[in-house]
Amino acid sequence: MRFFSDNAAPAHPAVLDALAAANSLDTAYDGDAWTQRLDAAFSDLFETPVSALWVTTGTAANCLALAAMVPPYGGVLCHREAHINVDEAGAPEFFTAGAKLLLVDGPGAKLTVDAVEKARSRIRADVHQVQPHALSITNASEYGLTYSPDETAALGEWARSHKLRFHLDGARFANAVVSTGASPADLTWRAGVEALSFGCVKNGGLSAEALVLFDRDLADTARRLRKRSGHLLSKGRYLAAQLLAMIDGDVWLANARNANEAARRLASAAGAERLVHPVEANEVFIRLSADEAARLRGQGFDFYDWGVGEARLVTSWDQDLAAVDRLADAIRGL
Amino acid sequence: MRFFSDNAAPAHPAVLDALAAANSLDTAYDGDAWTQRLDAAFSDLFETPVSALWVTTGTAANCLALAAMVPPYGGVLCHREAHINVDEAGAPEFFTAGAKLLLVDGPGAKLTVDAVEKARSRIRADVHQVQPHALSITNASEYGLTYSPDETAALGEWARSHKLRFHLDGARFANAVVSTGASPADLTWRAGVEALSFGCVKNGGLSAEALVLFDRDLADTARRLRKRSGHLLSKGRYLAAQLLAMIDGDVWLANARNANEAARRLASAAGAERLVHPVEANEVFIRLSADEAARLRGQGFDFYDWGVGEARLVTSWDQDLAAVDRLADAIRGL
Amino acid sequence: MRFFSDNAAPAHPAVLDALAAANSLDTAYDGDAWTQRLDAAFSDLFETPVSALWVTTGTAANCLALAAMVPPYGGVLCHREAHINVDEAGAPEFFTAGAKLLLVDGPGAKLTVDAVEKARSRIRADVHQVQPHALSITNASEYGLTYSPDETAALGEWARSHKLRFHLDGARFANAVVSTGASPADLTWRAGVEALSFGCVKNGGLSAEALVLFDRDLADTARRLRKRSGHLLSKGRYLAAQLLAMIDGDVWLANARNANEAARRLASAAGAERLVHPVEANEVFIRLSADEAARLRGQGFDFYDWGVGEARLVTSWDQDLAAVDRLADAIRGL
Amino acid sequence: MRFFSDNAAPAHPAVLDALAAANSLDTAYDGDAWTQRLDAAFSDLFETPVSALWVTTGTAANCLALAAMVPPYGGVLCHREAHINVDEAGAPEFFTAGAKLLLVDGPGAKLTVDAVEKARSRIRADVHQVQPHALSITNASEYGLTYSPDETAALGEWARSHKLRFHLDGARFANAVVSTGASPADLTWRAGVEALSFGCVKNGGLSAEALVLFDRDLADTARRLRKRSGHLLSKGRYLAAQLLAMIDGDVWLANARNANEAARRLASAAGAERLVHPVEANEVFIRLSADEAARLRGQGFDFYDWGVGEARLVTSWDQDLAAVDRLADAIRGL
Repeated sequence: MRFFSDNAAPAHPAVLDALAAANSLDTAYDGDAWTQRLDAAFSDLFETPVSALWVTTGTAANCLALAAMVPPYGGVLCHREAHINVDEAGAPEFFTAGAKLLLVDGPGAKLTVDAVEKARSRIRADVHQVQPHALSITNASEYGLTYSPDETAALGEWARSHKLRFHLDGARFANAVVSTGASPADLTWRAGVEALSFGCVKNGGLSAEALVLFDRDLADTARRLRKRSGHLLSKGRYLAAQLLAMIDGDVWLANARNANEAARRLASAAGAERLVHPVEANEVFIRLSADEAARLRGQGFDFYDWGVGEARLVTSWDQDLAAVDRLADAIRGL
Repeated sequence: MRFFSDNAAPAHPAVLDALAAANSLDTAYDGDAWTQRLDAAFSDLFETPVSALWVTTGTAANCLALAAMVPPYGGVLCHREAHINVDEAGAPEFFTAGAKLLLVDGPGAKLTVDAVEKARSRIRADVHQVQPHALSITNASEYGLTYSPDETAALGEWARSHKLRFHLDGARFANAVVSTGASPADLTWRAGVEALSFGCVKNGGLSAEALVLFDRDLADTARRLRKRSGHLLSKGRYLAAQLLAMIDGDVWLANARNANEAARRLASAAGAERLVHPVEANEVFIRLSADEAARLRGQGFDFYDWGVGEARLVTSWDQDLAAVDRLADAIRGL
Repeated sequence: MRFFSDNAAPAHPAVLDALAAANSLDTAYDGDAWTQRLDAAFSDLFETPVSALWVTTGTAANCLALAAMVPPYGGVLCHREAHINVDEAGAPEFFTAGAKLLLVDGPGAKLTVDAVEKARSRIRADVHQVQPHALSITNASEYGLTYSPDETAALGEWARSHKLRFHLDGARFANAVVSTGASPADLTWRAGVEALSFGCVKNGGLSAEALVLFDRDLADTARRLRKRSGHLLSKGRYLAAQLLAMIDGDVWLANARNANEAARRLASAAGAERLVHPVEANEVFIRLSADEAARLRGQGFDFYDWGVGEARLVTSWDQDLAAVDRLADAIRGL
Repeated sequence: MRFFSDNAAPAHPAVLDALAAANSLDTAYDGDAWTQRLDAAFSDLFETPVSALWVTTGTAANCLALAAMVPPYGGVLCHREAHINVDEAGAPEFFTAGAKLLLVDGPGAKLTVDAVEKARSRIRADVHQVQPHALSITNASEYGLTYSPDETAALGEWARSHKLRFHLDGARFANAVVSTGASPADLTWRAGVEALSFGCVKNGGLSAEALVLFDRDLADTARRLRKRSGHLLSKGRYLAAQLLAMIDGDVWLANARNANEAARRLASAAGAERLVHPVEANEVFIRLSADEAARLRGQGFDFYDWGVGEARLVTSWDQDLAAVDRLADAIRGL
């Protein structure tokens, strides 16, 4: 049983059905009927008019947003362990043509107003130092922690007061919505977020993510950058159809609910002593000796080591809860 | 009946079947079983060991190849009407970080050794001018003309003699293979081509193209650039599966054969007088007055105007030949 | 006697004196007393408030202006033979992070409203093509032709009507001012120019050029880009002092007057038959057989061949008119 | 009396004399007689054949070196407080087209093999993370500490073993040479350094720095990048002449000797209690209360605060030692 990545899971059946349903003649690029429905569908979901663009990866969504917000000579405040800094191979620097990630620390890969203000205040305003132009956070964070609407709004207010753009990496946004119980609107634009990378692939999608722009003035630039970066697919209808399938009937929330529940069960089994971070979404970081790890693997459970003496367990939308309970029991039995 | 773009056609059933077949748990990114089969499958097809990377667009394939070949301060010799110059929104400049397209003219968007040598010889070698580092051609060309193995080899030899890299944009490579009757190998590496953008989407694919590297030393850089440009999909198996489905059983050749045959019938109906370019692949450029265009459209045929007094008809892998014959008759009847 | 480049001439004595006068302790970068006087000095010269930045090369001035005006995904309309396209090693693409030069033709390396409108109208507004964001012209042009205030204003008006920025490469701006008899203001901001590369080095400077921003909102970005591109010298006072020395007492105009007069004499000697372009500044392009060129060189005159059967003679601020007359006589004697 | 920056000092008389001596007709760019002497002069100085390029700023020297060494998708290991990271406005990211600075910590802004190995070993080799391609250190460091030949060679050996390029920012290289008593060769190429930014402006130059390439294969690329970045001055002879004047007769060493001696006297006056870092070059960082700082300023001494309770005193090549002793006395008297 695999617990090492939600990217390893298959696509949800509704997504495959949507591909088949979209498999007819239509206009190329983003002129087709499915794509034309995206803005309305996401505007409904977020209770405000938005521009929504399909893309194929979270990296593309993140970096198109940042490149639309930040000039080449600008900077982006983000967590030192943010995916954009650690696991995107320099894509932010590539898309922005050399903007600098200005790194901030904080437990659980989360940022606070105090932390970002401290980082910002150390930067001189003169021409010798790169100035911040945007703030980027991740919800749920790289360690599976969530931001509440209030936490997000505090950062949004702070960003606004310093004329910084505000981007949210939502590779696991669905898990954050389910975990906090907050509305998508409260976790984003009502809290000042101007662009959201709305993740689907980890949550049952096949190859479609969405870039949701609450500041619709960013849309023209984002669309041009999407083409310029080779991300405007010729047959875009197959991406739009996936996204529509995920939000129609709240498939995205049902999927996240299952993944979060699986993680909750593992966390409960692990207990406070073992947990490296609180478990609020679908990632469980636990203390595990090499011997313990070997024993779990011997029972057929796959997962990543996370440094020395720790392990990461990621649960997926399709995780069979009975199998999860077997792992939970195995952890209890260590 | 639509004749305006091969991107408007649906995906071939074998491609959808392959997606369904790939819809199970596997390793993320490019570690899955399908992706692992790509190198072998393309090496068989091209009769030589190659590295093959899936990507989602021809623009990405073209520009990853160019960026792996050309430094930011270098240049790429290409036709003035090449897709990379005209219709990719500056993607080559983006991926290469500012390399310059050095434009060459020639009928039918084709290049000859004479033309490229003339362009090259005008460039001073000093530091004030951008030096060419690569040559890029398109087969079939943007006007539906093909390069024979000999024509390609002459350019390849010339490029080699000037230490230039050689890239082939094969958005319609299948149509060129079918049209020339030449082997994929003779049209590429045997003629000096080092990197090929192997098009699938126009030819029945859903969202997968291949970047085929005959110079396998380019593969490590190309793979890093693929990630850096946001083109490393989390669930790459769904792209690999499409490519394998297209080349298994020669679906790609059957599809191109149908499209070419459709174009041939239209060309035959149009006659030499009307044809702007010889028809060698699946694009037909004809002289057509505004009145004639209106009459064809009145009969239900859709296509693009191409400047004043001309029209472009593109045929697809799934084009019903009976419908094509109706358009052919309508053209004859003008 | 050298006629091959105005860059070969020495610096004017007033410039060297200014360096000596500035050789005392002061604040680093651009905080010194000399630099602080630049805005006022250039505002006086141009009869309007401007921001003026010292730089060391015309390439830097041109490209800082373009990078402050044009995003990486944008384009710049310019002449195919413009210095920025032909002789700056891709610097515009480097500074702008990949913006595209959109090339326009016209006799004498000059642009007209008709020519730029024709080029602009061929560009589709969709996301597949690079959109123009700026227009750049050169006065005097690369072939020594000048734009009158009216010609400049027509282009400026056209640019404004299409929301394009307007840049003027004035590597030989002094020669254009002297030649046209127009005021610096009439040749620039009154005609819609928003940024001027004000050349000094070809005209008697040692290492200082000025970037004059009529749109002062560009200044903050230009200053940041100047630092980011390594062009903020630690001891900027030595550049500011040169510029002040050139415009104090109208040294720049006296120098250009001498160079233009020298060119006029050569043009007069060459006669209409030999002249490839009208001579309006300090460059003389003449038809000259290989034999004739050899004879002139045999008499001690140095100049560049300019293609087959043509030669370029460039006159300098310090050109001794007696020596010029000897070359004029030699040309008459061919 | 100013102690806030060695950039505030004037140019050495020999430098001004050299400008006057170079003020005659010569070939443009880097074809002149002075520039042609640079390679030989620096090869003598470093006891090995080198390529030496004039530039106008340390930022340009640093970033041309890095851009010649590191591809856009690569990374540079450097100290978190390195000038290239903190005070160059993102110039490394600009010149390299987005390479990432991979930050390492260590006391006094110095790096050790342990520190860089620890940083390197944390980077996974997969395509998701930016790989280091070069190591860059600063000697003397940003806090005025020097690397000995052995310390440099240890880093050089480590870099070589990991196939990393090795760059040395020598904005205050002269001070390091004087301080360590080591030969220029032992501090550079004999220790594995492949490119050196050889600082002159802080040490009595006017506007010239040198980029010294021990790996001469880097020279062609560096020269092209110099032009492309607008750093190829039209009248390069005035830069070459400055550099030659500095190294002829060892002016550069005499100047550094004076500056270091001035710093030594201040350090001695301050005493170990007050010193934040050991004083090994021409920078003195001392603990100083706000009241004490005010008292020194009241006596006519200018310097920068350096965070709360600290101050930075920088001594220059032209510092009058009698005045330095007055400051030393004032510090003792606090």
